[in-house]
Amino acid sequence: MISWGDIYKVVVAMAPLYVALGLGYGSVRWWRIITPEQCEAINRLVSCITLPLFTFEFTLHVDPFAMNYRFIAADAVSKVTIAVLLAAWPKCSSKGSYCWSVTSFSLSTLTNSLVVGVPLVSAMYGRWAQDLVVQLSVVQAIVWLTLLLFVFELRKAGCGLFSMAAAPSSAGGELASVESPPLKDVDGGGPEVTPRPSFWSLMKTVWLKLALNPNSYASIVGITWAFIASRWHFEMPSIMEGSVLIMSKAGTGMAMFSMGLFMALQEKILACGPSLTAFGMVLKFIAGPAATAIGAIAVGLRGDVLHLAIIQAALPQSITSFIFAREYGLHADVLSTAVIFGMLVSLPVLVAYYVVLGFMS
Amino acid sequence: MISWGDIYKVVVAMAPLYVALGLGYGSVRWWRIITPEQCEAINRLVSCITLPLFTFEFTLHVDPFAMNYRFIAADAVSKVTIAVLLAAWPKCSSKGSYCWSVTSFSLSTLTNSLVVGVPLVSAMYGRWAQDLVVQLSVVQAIVWLTLLLFVFELRKAGCGLFSMAAAPSSAGGELASVESPPLKDVDGGGPEVTPRPSFWSLMKTVWLKLALNPNSYASIVGITWAFIASRWHFEMPSIMEGSVLIMSKAGTGMAMFSMGLFMALQEKILACGPSLTAFGMVLKFIAGPAATAIGAIAVGLRGDVLHLAIIQAALPQSITSFIFAREYGLHADVLSTAVIFGMLVSLPVLVAYYVVLGFMS
Repeated sequence: MISWGDIYKVVVAMAPLYVALGLGYGSVRWWRIITPEQCEAINRLVSCITLPLFTFEFTLHVDPFAMNYRFIAADAVSKVTIAVLLAAWPKCSSKGSYCWSVTSFSLSTLTNSLVVGVPLVSAMYGRWAQDLVVQLSVVQAIVWLTLLLFVFELRKAGCGLFSMAAAPSSAGGELASVESPPLKDVDGGGPEVTPRPSFWSLMKTVWLKLALNPNSYASIVGITWAFIASRWHFEMPSIMEGSVLIMSKAGTGMAMFSMGLFMALQEKILACGPSLTAFGMVLKFIAGPAATAIGAIAVGLRGDVLHLAIIQAALPQSITSFIFAREYGLHADVLSTAVIFGMLVSLPVLVAYYVVLGFMS
Repeated sequence: MISWGDIYKVVVAMAPLYVALGLGYGSVRWWRIITPEQCEAINRLVSCITLPLFTFEFTLHVDPFAMNYRFIAADAVSKVTIAVLLAAWPKCSSKGSYCWSVTSFSLSTLTNSLVVGVPLVSAMYGRWAQDLVVQLSVVQAIVWLTLLLFVFELRKAGCGLFSMAAAPSSAGGELASVESPPLKDVDGGGPEVTPRPSFWSLMKTVWLKLALNPNSYASIVGITWAFIASRWHFEMPSIMEGSVLIMSKAGTGMAMFSMGLFMALQEKILACGPSLTAFGMVLKFIAGPAATAIGAIAVGLRGDVLHLAIIQAALPQSITSFIFAREYGLHADVLSTAVIFGMLVSLPVLVAYYVVLGFMS
């Protein structure tokens, strides 16, 4: 059973995020401290410096030899299940398309684990929950966002799969295989787009993108450090730790502030219209957690760890997934709505999950 | 005696500030993440939101009924002494001018107590030292910066004192009286500038400026809250505290980052030339601490509290004093050099003070 005190603790943890969001929104819309043209500067500061250091700081303290691999497996099972279902969708229904499959995958699986997840789940379940969420965020940054980027590059390279018409059935299985390694060489698909890029040239582009993306950078360097430090039992000198912390401490506040700026720049909150918003919210807050519940039960999670797995799947949309969608021009409005509107409604939704799951235990 | 370990602790506390400074500088000059035109947005974010909340957070936790009034008196005695000397300067020497008196007062007395002072003195002397520095910062924000603003407004209103020629001796005592309350009505001074503003109309302008200055705002609201909370023994609800903390935590890093941006925008570090820089550094790092030492000994401070009083007087230049100087067009280049170059050399200077004072105990 969850008491009122428990719920209040969650509200206390989440309210500051909304305050920072409101400060960002108000700075542009109400107080005009920052002009719309200037928002880009703050975005760049956040995405190139503050957030990478924020991610780095968390990743650094993961112990790769004490990760909860069952928890991570539950997450992987659910994501692969969703990917397979979404890959089958265009083949089974005339309404489906691979473009929508990619967006639906983003919506139902990729979450804002560090900025929103960490304060939320620590308030709900305590320190161990925070550790697990950080572990998932590392996997998301290194594995799932890399795969998403790969799929976007595949689409950009002109792979027949992503033509708006129904995809040729001969290439139908490729999306699923992209989501679940080992990756298949996509050479030799349908005849309508030339030249076809080879798997390795695509991978090269993906790695280049990642090397230029400060956030994946931060995850990879962070987890490498964590491996070495855990293996040989040493700690980062406090002078380095302090140098990272001075900017990373700003991470949560600045990320939410910058989301507030972004919100202020939108003409309307529901950029993609109400029905697509509803579609996004169902994927985000129902389909994602449901799939995770199935995956978690399948690998044998029980009790609070099971609840945590479900709740972290209902966290608001990953901002990186929106940034990719914008960069590659694929349903950016749907993703932006999921980021903004999802953030606004997430507090009641997550509290509701928390209460309902509390009754079940 | 100060050990190598003590010095290392100080370096550990200060190094992150320089890292944040370097990130700001590098973002413009090396990596071109932020264009020079965009710096203004980050400045405004820092000066309108982050720093006020940072100041507010510290001020909030001051206990006005347990302040070290002797420490504050030592500081006040030294500042008044400096003000009297500087006010006498234009009368005694043809080289002096009231404009330079104001700038010299800024240089020798106004410090960056929160951003640089707090981490530095905690590393040197521990928590009690931090509390004392925060108390001084509140007094500086509410009393001394208000007086400085008043003097700037006086000058702007065209008071004869500030003409570049030697001041008429009939009005010569006014600057000193401005620096040491009760303030004298400046009506009826020399005949060369009309119309003369009345004391109250000047005060109205000053209060309006302060009401629009988010940082003095934050100090006044913060200390008011601190009075009420200490008097009736209640604490700020954690939901409010968290909402302030989410942005105030970013304070140190963002302030240093923004100073780095400012540095990157300067054509040269020593904007005012080497001789004026040397003049500023002598006032800042020698005259200010010396005057404070005299004041502190006069009111009877001894031991670590005396050392702390001297060291806090040698902190780098207050950024607000530069902002005022720029706004009112009075030696902004000298103040900007004091802020930037003072920050760069402050670590060795402060460590030297720390070591020398350690030998004396």
